[in-house]
Amino acid sequence: MSGVFQHSIRVGWGNCDPAGIAYTGWLPMFALQSIDAWWADRLGAGWYEMEFDHGFGTPFVSMRLDFSSPVTPRHPLVCEVAPVRLGRTSITFRVVGRQDGVDRFSGSFTSVFVTHGGLEKREPPGHVRDLVEREIAGNP
Amino acid sequence: MSGVFQHSIRVGWGNCDPAGIAYTGWLPMFALQSIDAWWADRLGAGWYEMEFDHGFGTPFVSMRLDFSSPVTPRHPLVCEVAPVRLGRTSITFRVVGRQDGVDRFSGSFTSVFVTHGGLEKREPPGHVRDLVEREIAGNP
Amino acid sequence: MSGVFQHSIRVGWGNCDPAGIAYTGWLPMFALQSIDAWWADRLGAGWYEMEFDHGFGTPFVSMRLDFSSPVTPRHPLVCEVAPVRLGRTSITFRVVGRQDGVDRFSGSFTSVFVTHGGLEKREPPGHVRDLVEREIAGNP
Amino acid sequence: MSGVFQHSIRVGWGNCDPAGIAYTGWLPMFALQSIDAWWADRLGAGWYEMEFDHGFGTPFVSMRLDFSSPVTPRHPLVCEVAPVRLGRTSITFRVVGRQDGVDRFSGSFTSVFVTHGGLEKREPPGHVRDLVEREIAGNP
Repeated sequence: MSGVFQHSIRVGWGNCDPAGIAYTGWLPMFALQSIDAWWADRLGAGWYEMEFDHGFGTPFVSMRLDFSSPVTPRHPLVCEVAPVRLGRTSITFRVVGRQDGVDRFSGSFTSVFVTHGGLEKREPPGHVRDLVEREIAGNP
Repeated sequence: MSGVFQHSIRVGWGNCDPAGIAYTGWLPMFALQSIDAWWADRLGAGWYEMEFDHGFGTPFVSMRLDFSSPVTPRHPLVCEVAPVRLGRTSITFRVVGRQDGVDRFSGSFTSVFVTHGGLEKREPPGHVRDLVEREIAGNP
Repeated sequence: MSGVFQHSIRVGWGNCDPAGIAYTGWLPMFALQSIDAWWADRLGAGWYEMEFDHGFGTPFVSMRLDFSSPVTPRHPLVCEVAPVRLGRTSITFRVVGRQDGVDRFSGSFTSVFVTHGGLEKREPPGHVRDLVEREIAGNP
Repeated sequence: MSGVFQHSIRVGWGNCDPAGIAYTGWLPMFALQSIDAWWADRLGAGWYEMEFDHGFGTPFVSMRLDFSSPVTPRHPLVCEVAPVRLGRTSITFRVVGRQDGVDRFSGSFTSVFVTHGGLEKREPPGHVRDLVEREIAGNP
């Protein structure tokens, strides 16, 4: 039992380019959507509720993506998401996208915690820190 | 038991505009994705497999959408899809998008059947005609 | 000299589907972007500044689009935008998308005026009404 | 006179999230569109013509993006694009996005050259190699 969060995405015709594979520009969109889904699952609040109900946000400061194999509509895109590093005011996620058991891309995404409605860095709320630390400890 | 096909979409932060609701431009994207999912469910081939494996396509000639209530990330967007008219070389779908039991938008989308790799109109294959006629008869 | 507003869009590889033409879902996105650009040009405030600086918004209540010919990356997509009807609290635009002198799609888009941060209908500010009425009179 | 290629993008309401800034997922889309525009300007063939008329493609194997400042609709987004490394079968671009003279993001994007319709690596055509080498030499 790995317990790593997985988010499944339906890749469609509209995501594919004339080469018949998902256009590169959609892959960061899919990875980000999967991180949003991780928060919704783990914290019970995706980015929308986090901002409007919980008073903080997590804008991105960097992303790195490596594409190893094309994504197509022939299988669901299963995105595995896990936090891998928690700084004083930042968090880094690893996202791996797989189809039919084969890695298609993997990436690293770093956000900072900010107060809602501003872009001032802040430390995450205590229960968020606890949650992320537990999750990192459980995903060695 | 209605039997009408439903496709559920996760609306996220990235689909929302500064008014805090899903940006209008995403709603046709969601409706089209739901029609693609209808084909995948009913025919066993979404638009991608339809083109590459079955040799025909269904480009759109028109869409009409009415927006009655905002779409937000607070609930899944459930899109109900049903074919409502089958012409000699065309098909019209009705799509209704609901969240939390409330209609958010409804639309009508008309495609024509064409040969793969070209844009010449053609009649749909017989098993497609049968399938659609049965579905229309069952969704009065 | 027609004076009708034109907005030019670069259609790229990433907007095309495996049939080698712009995916249907991008066409409403392009039309909406062109209406946003019309406001920026005519009022001096696109939707963003309209909401944040001018205190009102114009969410859509309907769109109708007819697609007559495929859009490709081979030519700029020139979208002609003109208001065609002004109601007490609503406005309707006509958008025609052309490439290389050939109509590709045409559409009708209706918005309502609302107060910022809410979704209550309101009449447009007087200078907006004047501007739109003049433009409609000049585009018979 | 730097001669570095610049591509200007209109960021709109529809690209912004509820925090009032361009959604992170659109920034790779904008950067990729700018690289496509670089090819169109320098080679006379964007990705579309490259595939369909010139018989080769340049799928991406990696992207790295750092976000330093928010992108908004208040100014055009000017993306500066330059090739920075040419391998035997790969090319790396640097893209810097600026608004109002301020860096908003910068990124590195690596593609491989492949034959059209396949995903087999190949060396770029000679005139492409020449063009890129000259451009790299001119952008120290």
